[in-house]
Amino acid sequence: MAVYTEVSDEALSAFLALYEIGEVISFKGIAEGVENSNFLMRTTEGQYILTLYEKRVKAEDLPFFVGLMEHLARRGVTCPQPVRNRAGAALGELADRPATIVTFLDGLWIRRPSVRHCGEVGAALARMHLAGADFPLRRANALSLEGWPPLLEAAEARADEVAPHLRAESAAELSLLQAHWPKDLPSGVIHADLFNDNVFFLGEKLSGLIDFYFACNDALAYDLAICLSAWCFEPDNEFNVSKGRAMISGYERVRPLGEAEIGALPLLARGAALRFMLTRLVDWLNVPPGAKVAPKNPLEYRDKLRFHQRVKSAADYGLMR
Amino acid sequence: MAVYTEVSDEALSAFLALYEIGEVISFKGIAEGVENSNFLMRTTEGQYILTLYEKRVKAEDLPFFVGLMEHLARRGVTCPQPVRNRAGAALGELADRPATIVTFLDGLWIRRPSVRHCGEVGAALARMHLAGADFPLRRANALSLEGWPPLLEAAEARADEVAPHLRAESAAELSLLQAHWPKDLPSGVIHADLFNDNVFFLGEKLSGLIDFYFACNDALAYDLAICLSAWCFEPDNEFNVSKGRAMISGYERVRPLGEAEIGALPLLARGAALRFMLTRLVDWLNVPPGAKVAPKNPLEYRDKLRFHQRVKSAADYGLMR
Repeated sequence: MAVYTEVSDEALSAFLALYEIGEVISFKGIAEGVENSNFLMRTTEGQYILTLYEKRVKAEDLPFFVGLMEHLARRGVTCPQPVRNRAGAALGELADRPATIVTFLDGLWIRRPSVRHCGEVGAALARMHLAGADFPLRRANALSLEGWPPLLEAAEARADEVAPHLRAESAAELSLLQAHWPKDLPSGVIHADLFNDNVFFLGEKLSGLIDFYFACNDALAYDLAICLSAWCFEPDNEFNVSKGRAMISGYERVRPLGEAEIGALPLLARGAALRFMLTRLVDWLNVPPGAKVAPKNPLEYRDKLRFHQRVKSAADYGLMR
Repeated sequence: MAVYTEVSDEALSAFLALYEIGEVISFKGIAEGVENSNFLMRTTEGQYILTLYEKRVKAEDLPFFVGLMEHLARRGVTCPQPVRNRAGAALGELADRPATIVTFLDGLWIRRPSVRHCGEVGAALARMHLAGADFPLRRANALSLEGWPPLLEAAEARADEVAPHLRAESAAELSLLQAHWPKDLPSGVIHADLFNDNVFFLGEKLSGLIDFYFACNDALAYDLAICLSAWCFEPDNEFNVSKGRAMISGYERVRPLGEAEIGALPLLARGAALRFMLTRLVDWLNVPPGAKVAPKNPLEYRDKLRFHQRVKSAADYGLMR
């Protein structure tokens, strides 16, 4: 993140007075995350994260996110838990922004995941998919197929400044995906952004998942496709099939993939790679003055996309049947 | 700060294995501070701050800073305490940078200080001055009189892009200060950067001082002059004499000012204002690509300087005699 919004002393005191979480004894902005302002807060009662939702998170989506975290935790998925205030509300307002307090989750995110970490992530993703099956709220995936053309439009005039032919390459991929995007796959609540900074470990054991602010309803296998790109490539953008195999088999130990999902996996992975390439490209071309977070390189995802284009079947990701 | 340096999982584990502080259970970059990379670290034993010293801190100065924090604490000044590793060293190396672990200090920094806070800060500053009196190491103030001409040279070609006549205004002030800079004032260890984000409070009670990385030997009253500018102006850059009075009388309750110090205070305040104006100006004109911290506005300190130029005597700061 970075901290986008400063909170005045008086506003913070007034906000916290609504909660039964003791006296604040420390309050520090966290230099992680991209979308929101996050503060690590210690009180006489415990540790919490205070989040101010910046403009990229829509206020009307917050009940979905808050409800989902509560729902998943009740079904055994370790994730931050919204703290309700004295009036029973998990959502408040602070510094003119929607705000929540959630419990603090122990653990560290892994900078360089190992094969073993990838296996743990696969299993945790599947457990999350099962736990979310009966979550009653719904949220469409704004960054799936219908969301990609506007992203490309926003970037195409200057895409070739970033790399030669990037506009044409993106447009061709988008056309192909529009023609062949898999439909009718098993769907449910997906995390949709389970990158390594959103998964905590204590030692080699996964200790929890965070940052559900892209969660939505979509094909479950699409979430696995996102994770394959996020976790199983080496820093030189070469796919590591040992990591892919560990992730897929970790997933399948909890939730076996159906034949349609297996067949669709390469296309889903292409879509996931295009999605992150396009959002990064738009951010790359629109770094605001005074930006506090360096934009991520879109070409990392172009290279991952090119790998997925060469994939013949899910066996290339390490699937064993 | 922001986090300038990423720490790999392996390097962190290897570094922490040198210490007896338990197992790490959380590790988060902090979005505060400007000079170094800071991480809030929780272990099975307690909370700590891990600091990586970036290039603006000279490695040869670190024994002064580390020793000072230990010295001040032994004399009752609450400040972070360096944690020594199994070999007894308080200074280590991590990610190719000098690194320390210090104890975590409870408290919040105050975004909008009140008169009462200013009084507490004055008293704490004086206590620090007394506690530092017998600290044996010495460090020259690189950002006092001799340090200002190189700063002006670095900025003068483009100073007028920031405000009309800023170059000439700065040069005239520098000449005047070079001709009249007070000498032979009582001196000792000063903090030299005691801004509001470096002072922690629990409620209205000051709970500790942090960030000694500008500390040096200089006139004690110069430290007070820095604090008058840092704490006693309102957001519109108008001096609040109630805050000044509270700060000076808080200071004098612990360490009364001598006549020479009182007489010199307006000039010291002009010097302090010029120092922060110049360092901010250089930073403003040299924002590196990918900067994670927005530069501070140098004109805030030009306006404060103009106020100090109009001051007739320390009575204008609220001194009562």
